[in-house]
Amino acid sequence: MILRLAIIGYGNVGREFARMLTRKREWLIKNKGLDIEVLAISTRSKGSLLSDRALDLGKVEDELERNGHLRGYGRESTDLSPLDIIDNCDADVMVELTTLDIRAGQPAIDHISNALQSKMHVITANKGPIAFAYDKLESLARSRNVKLRFEGTVMDGTPIFNLVEKTLQGCEITRLEGILNSTSNYVLTEMSKGRTLDDAVKETQRLSIAEADPSLDLDGWDAAAKITALANVLMGAGSTPQKVDRKGIADLSQDDIASARSEGTKIKFVARAERNGPNVLTSVAPERLRSDSPFWSVDGTSSALTISTDLMGELTILETRPVLTQTAYAVLSDLLLIAEWIRCNSL
Amino acid sequence: MILRLAIIGYGNVGREFARMLTRKREWLIKNKGLDIEVLAISTRSKGSLLSDRALDLGKVEDELERNGHLRGYGRESTDLSPLDIIDNCDADVMVELTTLDIRAGQPAIDHISNALQSKMHVITANKGPIAFAYDKLESLARSRNVKLRFEGTVMDGTPIFNLVEKTLQGCEITRLEGILNSTSNYVLTEMSKGRTLDDAVKETQRLSIAEADPSLDLDGWDAAAKITALANVLMGAGSTPQKVDRKGIADLSQDDIASARSEGTKIKFVARAERNGPNVLTSVAPERLRSDSPFWSVDGTSSALTISTDLMGELTILETRPVLTQTAYAVLSDLLLIAEWIRCNSL
Repeated sequence: MILRLAIIGYGNVGREFARMLTRKREWLIKNKGLDIEVLAISTRSKGSLLSDRALDLGKVEDELERNGHLRGYGRESTDLSPLDIIDNCDADVMVELTTLDIRAGQPAIDHISNALQSKMHVITANKGPIAFAYDKLESLARSRNVKLRFEGTVMDGTPIFNLVEKTLQGCEITRLEGILNSTSNYVLTEMSKGRTLDDAVKETQRLSIAEADPSLDLDGWDAAAKITALANVLMGAGSTPQKVDRKGIADLSQDDIASARSEGTKIKFVARAERNGPNVLTSVAPERLRSDSPFWSVDGTSSALTISTDLMGELTILETRPVLTQTAYAVLSDLLLIAEWIRCNSL
Repeated sequence: MILRLAIIGYGNVGREFARMLTRKREWLIKNKGLDIEVLAISTRSKGSLLSDRALDLGKVEDELERNGHLRGYGRESTDLSPLDIIDNCDADVMVELTTLDIRAGQPAIDHISNALQSKMHVITANKGPIAFAYDKLESLARSRNVKLRFEGTVMDGTPIFNLVEKTLQGCEITRLEGILNSTSNYVLTEMSKGRTLDDAVKETQRLSIAEADPSLDLDGWDAAAKITALANVLMGAGSTPQKVDRKGIADLSQDDIASARSEGTKIKFVARAERNGPNVLTSVAPERLRSDSPFWSVDGTSSALTISTDLMGELTILETRPVLTQTAYAVLSDLLLIAEWIRCNSL
């Protein structure tokens, strides 16, 4: 089977995904009978490409490395907007990797809507659309008989959505608790070593962990978007990040950290979703955790999610020391599930 | 789709699985179009049933509750051996839930071989066959075009095998580390509270956590069987429990526990599998872990596994406070994947 992709948003994740496609090409053909071609690449500031045949991903990488721009790639170079590329591309799958807009999830929602309308499957690593418009997008996907997948939106490529869908079938999710924002977790870990909040935040910016605007991390907006995405998909919450009961960590002082430690606890920034009658309550706040918490060892840039269910009790999945390839892998993992679905539904 | 089962071994897990089938019956029909019938039940000492129509699971439970035996169930009652039941039953799926034999994995291996030969799919929660004969059984299943599934063999129903197969496709597993034996972990936890080893072992027997012969837990045989099953399936080890470098915890004293604590560490019973050239080295031994270990909070009957991969870094999955339904759920989860596979391969 050949699957043709349009990649909208081509930063670190997109480029890493392209390298992964090249690296795993033989494996994909041999083990999955899957030949993947990229027909379009859209970047925000480095030009775009649109073709009716497979782009040369090595050449794309060379252009970006050497010239910082795609305009020299060849006649596939185009000035079309992302939406026009989606509308004019003959791809089977649109991969949405633009950056998060926390206010309304745009323009990613429009990109995804247009692709689904055109009967493309969609994979996104952008949490905005899932936090703001999951129900609408999912029902659009169903009506067009295509799949919408988004493993990369929470905890990089750690299996969460796919884990629940594929390996916890028939379980009802009753509660979710997670450490979902790396920047704030890193800041809290550094503060516990004696650094000030400002110092630690500067370090996250130097390490490129933080969002461009670190207040999105420290005020809990990133974690709020993630717990909303989780609650929408796994618990049918139908919520938005604005509805999360949100308390940030920007006001925490060294005294708070020391006082927590003197009680044998650690302060962690915990996101929660809990069923309350017909509703799902979501919150994000600093909490004092004891050493028997599964989150006790989740320091630095690590993250974790506890999933409580009716049949399977309490599972926790930890992602320790995340590596660059993980969000890119989420896209590949989603792509393989889409290929399986197509194979199963087109026979 | 109707799936007809033969259940060989009908202790706590089998009975809980039957209750779960009843409880989730409507959900299965409505959401999965799946009607599950049990045609045969084989117990070791409480009689067996064989029928060409669905057994009444409520009536089975009543008989076992009231009379402790199935001989009064009706004309479906039979004296046939497990192997004869498998050979004479018109089931689509054989569910193997007999108890572990740590020396050679029998008679479960024969049960599974016979069922696969007869083109039945097989689900087992018995780690013996996967630890002793995985390669042979898996290739038999392939040759008969049926599936062999075994999620319940390690960490109850916690998704491990299904997680890797479904959500980590294309990742190479480079290392596994786990706390896989509840009894020894419980004993170590109790010892760290000041109890003696003997006392703690008696408590596990009272709580029915331990194997009938607790030395299987304390000498590391149970953990050895589990790490072998994991290494065989996920890393192609082709090994047996006898090849595990195995050191038990029966010799640990209060002094060892205290000395570990004085260094800020905890003693945990860790199973490992690691690639070494073309081989996979497996071991089970007590180790001192620091508080940054993802296993730090894994106390009592909880368990955990860290999976190291090429593309997805390090993932850890924790099962905290296991509940009775979990191994039964593993069987249901496997059954749903088999149903999906049949649907996809028979269209």
